[in-house]
Amino acid sequence: MHVSHRHQASRLQLSAAGRLRHFLSTEGLSCELLTEILDTAESFLLPDGGMRREPRLAGCTVMNLFFEASTRTRTTFEVAAKKLSADVVNIDISTSSTSKGETLRDMLWNLEAMDPDIFVVRHNLSGAAHYIAEQVTPRVAVINAGDGQHAHPTQAMLDMLTLRRHAGPFSELCVAIVGDIRHSRVARSNIHALQTLGARAIHVIGPHTLMPTGIEELGVKVFTRLEEGLRDVDVVIALRIQNERMASALLPSAQEFFQLYGLTEERMQLARPGALVMHPGPINRGVEIAGELADGERSVLLQQVSYGIAVRMAVLSMTLQGQKEAG
Amino acid sequence: MHVSHRHQASRLQLSAAGRLRHFLSTEGLSCELLTEILDTAESFLLPDGGMRREPRLAGCTVMNLFFEASTRTRTTFEVAAKKLSADVVNIDISTSSTSKGETLRDMLWNLEAMDPDIFVVRHNLSGAAHYIAEQVTPRVAVINAGDGQHAHPTQAMLDMLTLRRHAGPFSELCVAIVGDIRHSRVARSNIHALQTLGARAIHVIGPHTLMPTGIEELGVKVFTRLEEGLRDVDVVIALRIQNERMASALLPSAQEFFQLYGLTEERMQLARPGALVMHPGPINRGVEIAGELADGERSVLLQQVSYGIAVRMAVLSMTLQGQKEAG
Amino acid sequence: MHVSHRHQASRLQLSAAGRLRHFLSTEGLSCELLTEILDTAESFLLPDGGMRREPRLAGCTVMNLFFEASTRTRTTFEVAAKKLSADVVNIDISTSSTSKGETLRDMLWNLEAMDPDIFVVRHNLSGAAHYIAEQVTPRVAVINAGDGQHAHPTQAMLDMLTLRRHAGPFSELCVAIVGDIRHSRVARSNIHALQTLGARAIHVIGPHTLMPTGIEELGVKVFTRLEEGLRDVDVVIALRIQNERMASALLPSAQEFFQLYGLTEERMQLARPGALVMHPGPINRGVEIAGELADGERSVLLQQVSYGIAVRMAVLSMTLQGQKEAG
Repeated sequence: MHVSHRHQASRLQLSAAGRLRHFLSTEGLSCELLTEILDTAESFLLPDGGMRREPRLAGCTVMNLFFEASTRTRTTFEVAAKKLSADVVNIDISTSSTSKGETLRDMLWNLEAMDPDIFVVRHNLSGAAHYIAEQVTPRVAVINAGDGQHAHPTQAMLDMLTLRRHAGPFSELCVAIVGDIRHSRVARSNIHALQTLGARAIHVIGPHTLMPTGIEELGVKVFTRLEEGLRDVDVVIALRIQNERMASALLPSAQEFFQLYGLTEERMQLARPGALVMHPGPINRGVEIAGELADGERSVLLQQVSYGIAVRMAVLSMTLQGQKEAG
Repeated sequence: MHVSHRHQASRLQLSAAGRLRHFLSTEGLSCELLTEILDTAESFLLPDGGMRREPRLAGCTVMNLFFEASTRTRTTFEVAAKKLSADVVNIDISTSSTSKGETLRDMLWNLEAMDPDIFVVRHNLSGAAHYIAEQVTPRVAVINAGDGQHAHPTQAMLDMLTLRRHAGPFSELCVAIVGDIRHSRVARSNIHALQTLGARAIHVIGPHTLMPTGIEELGVKVFTRLEEGLRDVDVVIALRIQNERMASALLPSAQEFFQLYGLTEERMQLARPGALVMHPGPINRGVEIAGELADGERSVLLQQVSYGIAVRMAVLSMTLQGQKEAG
Repeated sequence: MHVSHRHQASRLQLSAAGRLRHFLSTEGLSCELLTEILDTAESFLLPDGGMRREPRLAGCTVMNLFFEASTRTRTTFEVAAKKLSADVVNIDISTSSTSKGETLRDMLWNLEAMDPDIFVVRHNLSGAAHYIAEQVTPRVAVINAGDGQHAHPTQAMLDMLTLRRHAGPFSELCVAIVGDIRHSRVARSNIHALQTLGARAIHVIGPHTLMPTGIEELGVKVFTRLEEGLRDVDVVIALRIQNERMASALLPSAQEFFQLYGLTEERMQLARPGALVMHPGPINRGVEIAGELADGERSVLLQQVSYGIAVRMAVLSMTLQGQKEAG
């Protein structure tokens, strides 16, 4: 998280004119640009909860390159791209091409020779989307749909849109993030976005074993006790607990986790009045969050999903535009 | 099959104005409504065997939710929806999301937050489509593409369209259904549709072990000997034998089944002159039906497939319209 | 490769008026027709390396029937068809329908009853596409996307387009094909196309064990030593080595193969000045071709991929047109 990294990330994501041409990370993007993403996303929202269709990607080909299976995230990008009239080609690489011994670079060169406009990339390795954006031909935009433990910037931006619409201006917000902070690309992307958008305070809450060393340098307050971390908070974002992680002894059992860090209506009383709960989904009821809380008035979980479509529509159309203007 | 069930099913499937808003079952729908489905389907048929394209679903998103793999049925819905200019998103849930431990209800809420218009649902549990229609937000239509041993209403309606076009008015028809009646959603859906449309008589033919108890109450005549059941019949619908079932000792071997219940040209002589044969496919030649019969003049198997596209186009456009009018 | 075969292939591929209605093989097609494919493909190429979109397949349904998994080839056809505004339905038959015990013929009849316009067929058995074209209803075009060791005609035509655009008129070209000639559908389809288009000379280079008996009768010169085969050559097409084959003792190890038949910049000095290298992909760097050569000035590997989209657009639109005129 050094300045040089930020510069590199912003250099790669932006055109010479400062327009978004790839969307890889919330790190290194300006408050103006993140706000433009939120404004664009909001322009697609209809009053009834649906999304406005616009043919901004008509005649364009979006390739969903999923090196790691994720039906849910792939579906959100497919729905968003089709609402913009794009042609969508799903390429499930986890099962197919790597088995033929081709290098990632060769595969990319091949795919870009097929004349696509946008690559949506999901990969289990941190940095994969950056690598692809560095390698790719200038006229193809790359959107990071989650890379290892590094970043999940569209998830962060849908969280930001949820905050802006349901919790008020960022400068007044104290946001807590609860769970496995160390391994979470969602936490990382959210912290960068919240900092850039000027959140009043950020709390990260979780067991010592799941707290990355030096996280305080990002300007967050660290809590290992949920009850302390919830004080003064306007919104709580619960992270998804990976079952794989629990097997590895870094995490207590699901039951123990719920006892220590599970969000309940009772515990939410410690936060500010009317404090909201969010979760990137899919939720484990009774692990990260009590079922009643997820279904209750404080929950904006399903709004998050809808805003996710709008945010992906925004990022797809903005990066396409950025590439065109740069080209 | 009690009256209360019928009322419940019709209440769920129809809007307050009596329009089709979900299509879950042929049970509980009126003769007028089933006839409207047939008329709408017929309006899509071209004289050359092709289907008329109409952009009635332009700007709409159809999600094919297949909790049970069925390439054939998924393909028919995908083709039908695309002929109506819909955006289609295929979601193969058998392999993906349930592995993340999400509940069905949470998954549905998430998917409906993505702003779809229609869910096409295939599930191995009876009642799944009803459950989903009960849970779903008002503006999303649910179409049952087969749920366990309960119903397969689009298959029934394509069978009805085949009967109407190739065998004459329902009031004059005696239809036999042959095979594993007990486990067949096709048999169940066909019996309800035939009753409602006023078929002259329905014969169900199969071994005792594969005959549901109390089936006579549905107004059908039960036969355990094929030769007896075929008498006076205008059309014979052979059901597909599931190989899984034969392993379970409920069914004799494939060879024995063919000897007892397999349809042949010779046996068809027992039926009325010119009697037709139908089969939902895929057929097992030499098990449910002799190859020559399947390929011969009595066979309308391939017309059934074509009408299946037209019926799905009808149901997709009618439920969409029903939702819009209700909303 | 007898005359009767050629006649049969051309009879099946052409309408009574001599128009392309199926595309199964480069064998048996005239120089005029292959040239028309190249001209049509070229008309889709834009100066910037992209492809011109045209709605020639608007309102048409293309079914990708892949009996053998090939994400790459399926993707090229899907991209090509969508650039022509077709509706595309992907049917992965390797995993699905054969498990239900249906015959290939029954499956085809079923699929054609769904009112498609074009079948794109990939199959691991030689002759599968011909068989399907023989069986299929007149109004459906069949395009061979690779059948066993028999033919891969769209690969051959993209190779021809690459030659025409980058190496000059066919009558002046000497083309070498290197590798496992015996098992290669690409080699077979390329040899037929090169002969028909009037190439000056064709060299086939590979170990004795991988050279089909009687190949000289096709009018090619056989070389077992790479160094000899490269002399006087304008273009070298390296074939992909199948790893499966190496396990079978027909082939030496990857390292040995590279020592004997691997293309390097040094060895390319034996060919004509400025000689080009081609490869159908995906490449095994350091097996069939040195990495520097693949990435160097002689390489037209990525142009091949782009032309592959244009050639598939050409073949899709020409066969559709051929069917319409015939119908």
